[in-house]
Amino acid sequence: MEVLDVLNLGEIAQYFSKMAMFPVFDLAYYIVSILYLKYEPGSVEVSRRSPVASWLCAMLYCFGSYILADIMLGACPIDYFHNNSHILLATAVWYLIFYCPLNLFYKCVAFLPVKLVLVAMKEVVRARKIAAGVHHAHHAYHHGWFIMVITGYVKGSGVALMANFEQLLRGVWKPETNEILNMSFPTKASLYGAILFTLQEAHWLPVSKSTLICLFTLFMATTKVTLTARHSHGSPFALIESWVCHLLFGSPLSVAEDAHDHHAPPPAAAPAVPLFPAKTKEELSEGTRKRKSKKAE
Amino acid sequence: MEVLDVLNLGEIAQYFSKMAMFPVFDLAYYIVSILYLKYEPGSVEVSRRSPVASWLCAMLYCFGSYILADIMLGACPIDYFHNNSHILLATAVWYLIFYCPLNLFYKCVAFLPVKLVLVAMKEVVRARKIAAGVHHAHHAYHHGWFIMVITGYVKGSGVALMANFEQLLRGVWKPETNEILNMSFPTKASLYGAILFTLQEAHWLPVSKSTLICLFTLFMATTKVTLTARHSHGSPFALIESWVCHLLFGSPLSVAEDAHDHHAPPPAAAPAVPLFPAKTKEELSEGTRKRKSKKAE
Amino acid sequence: MEVLDVLNLGEIAQYFSKMAMFPVFDLAYYIVSILYLKYEPGSVEVSRRSPVASWLCAMLYCFGSYILADIMLGACPIDYFHNNSHILLATAVWYLIFYCPLNLFYKCVAFLPVKLVLVAMKEVVRARKIAAGVHHAHHAYHHGWFIMVITGYVKGSGVALMANFEQLLRGVWKPETNEILNMSFPTKASLYGAILFTLQEAHWLPVSKSTLICLFTLFMATTKVTLTARHSHGSPFALIESWVCHLLFGSPLSVAEDAHDHHAPPPAAAPAVPLFPAKTKEELSEGTRKRKSKKAE
Repeated sequence: MEVLDVLNLGEIAQYFSKMAMFPVFDLAYYIVSILYLKYEPGSVEVSRRSPVASWLCAMLYCFGSYILADIMLGACPIDYFHNNSHILLATAVWYLIFYCPLNLFYKCVAFLPVKLVLVAMKEVVRARKIAAGVHHAHHAYHHGWFIMVITGYVKGSGVALMANFEQLLRGVWKPETNEILNMSFPTKASLYGAILFTLQEAHWLPVSKSTLICLFTLFMATTKVTLTARHSHGSPFALIESWVCHLLFGSPLSVAEDAHDHHAPPPAAAPAVPLFPAKTKEELSEGTRKRKSKKAE
Repeated sequence: MEVLDVLNLGEIAQYFSKMAMFPVFDLAYYIVSILYLKYEPGSVEVSRRSPVASWLCAMLYCFGSYILADIMLGACPIDYFHNNSHILLATAVWYLIFYCPLNLFYKCVAFLPVKLVLVAMKEVVRARKIAAGVHHAHHAYHHGWFIMVITGYVKGSGVALMANFEQLLRGVWKPETNEILNMSFPTKASLYGAILFTLQEAHWLPVSKSTLICLFTLFMATTKVTLTARHSHGSPFALIESWVCHLLFGSPLSVAEDAHDHHAPPPAAAPAVPLFPAKTKEELSEGTRKRKSKKAE
Repeated sequence: MEVLDVLNLGEIAQYFSKMAMFPVFDLAYYIVSILYLKYEPGSVEVSRRSPVASWLCAMLYCFGSYILADIMLGACPIDYFHNNSHILLATAVWYLIFYCPLNLFYKCVAFLPVKLVLVAMKEVVRARKIAAGVHHAHHAYHHGWFIMVITGYVKGSGVALMANFEQLLRGVWKPETNEILNMSFPTKASLYGAILFTLQEAHWLPVSKSTLICLFTLFMATTKVTLTARHSHGSPFALIESWVCHLLFGSPLSVAEDAHDHHAPPPAAAPAVPLFPAKTKEELSEGTRKRKSKKAE
């Protein structure tokens, strides 16, 4: 019985890891990505003033991971643009999100239940991209473990890693921060995922690739959906990371931040701001929201 | 009779589209490009303080389109630099424009009638570059229409698209604007030209390539010469674009700008400035000049 | 006797130019490079806050020249990362310099006599890199003299040429200066070295490559060790360059700077500061130190 179960699970994982991403999952990916672009302050004005710049940003949001991975591997950066149907689909999504009359499409996809489904589907694509990136790099460099991790990382993080330059396209320049200095959850998870997939590719991890894809997708989808539902910018890795960084790199234990979340002492939170000037407005308002909700409790 | 005419025109177009660009037309291209570099505020000081930086900027102005196109197609970015004679010619032009005793060479080529001829010749090269870029991309990606447009666009716009990074080389950083956000006439025309040449390459445009090159060159040369003669930064596409953007992208109709040109109402023009903070000093003084001339009329 | 001497010298040069760089010399290169990274203001905080960003910066410091050269020749920028042992060695050095208990490793390698030996060894690697870069470009472009110079230059200068972007990774942005505008001694020497090696590769210089490597290494090592020992940021080329630039490019003769060094007239030195706003704090304090020592004399 057990054996059968395992066999079935393996088969399901196999089937899942072979499932075509285009067009349904890719569509969800494009919608969520361009939704995040519309959230960026100033992006709506740019879409009015310069549709070309807005379209380019949208393309970077949708295909940034392919562009970066191609740059990293020395290939043609716009190679992915020969997939005309993908570009046209992403263009249609961009048009609907930014210019649909009455903002109808935006309101539909930004409606939380719909958005949660789309976010989960986006994570399915992300996991597949990381696996494909690592596999591609493994094909080019058989023992280039670092190259495999970097390619997988870049494939998973996408536009976040080149956010500074994407913002520059919209006339925004924030040099004091970048995604490497202040990694968000998806970027961190992509890094860890890329390491896992590299270990699997090197046969140091005793699981099949399809199982790993399945498990990683499950983890990413559930975590990201939970975070999105709770409007949280936290990370499930925070506690472990805090300790590991403290032991390995002598980083200060982030007790201040934990206190800030659980007991909300305003005097302690105040000096934290100059230490992390890179905190975005979004994150800060997030903190305020949390503190208020704690007080309400 | 008609047939003969057509035949002759076709032959002329054929001959024109096969005409060698090096050295005469390329020389004009280098002269006009490096002239524009010298117009940039601060570029003369840079040429005194750091000739290497000035030379690099001059090379970017002359060969930026090749560099960008090579980057886009994943080739060696400095591939064009193996044409030693082209580089030496451009270097000679750079030296003469920046360091010629009594500024003699600069005064000659900046003399309006001479400059108009050179500008017209530069547009001949530009049209050929766009056609070559689209053709090159078509060779690499048979159905990559987007790649063909992007390559042609980049080949036609050249350094303008990387102006931010070219300025950075001279120690200037203006992140609040870029060529995509505020397209100048040559950049816009390159984009439209790239689309036309791509349509031709895809056989969706019922003209031969040589005829298209001929017509596009004629349009570019006459328009650019007219704009240069009138010291104008306007664009013949403005009216159509304004309506198309209004219909497709909900952009506000640029009546304010038209009013600003024709009736010059200072109170209406005033609030336009914070809306377009990216307007260069040159454009602003241009506007002032226009208003004054209108008043004089 | 003379012939024997020459033979022996030639053999020594031959042996020297074939000597393996890994691991001893490369180790010295990594140590000195990451030492310079630690000298950068803010880099220690970055190493505490974001070890990933710090590690990436360290890799850029160690392998920036390979990355840039690969970019220039259109190859995979992270190609060098398939040398796992090199990356692991550099990572170990980075870890020891930034996180060693009691800062022990840093104190050892920053101890002047040790540092001077390491600096000399680093210059051995630099000379070899320039020669390899020129040779590699020569292999790809037989008559591409400019490409050979650029590749050699980039191989010798390494991270300095992309300092702006390396700083951006650490959240620092100083657009008003860059290594091309204000070349330091190693960057300048790399440029001249690249020109020499290109001339040699073109058989316009009547010396064998091994002899040239030997002589260039000797020059670089002695000069850099002297400069490091004297904590000087000067350049042995200053006088010749000043005259050549004056004759060729009309640059003002740097008498003001010489006066500033020898007679220290405060009123003359004062207006020089706004002219060179790019002067680093280090250089300025250097100037102050020099003036003080002159006064003491």
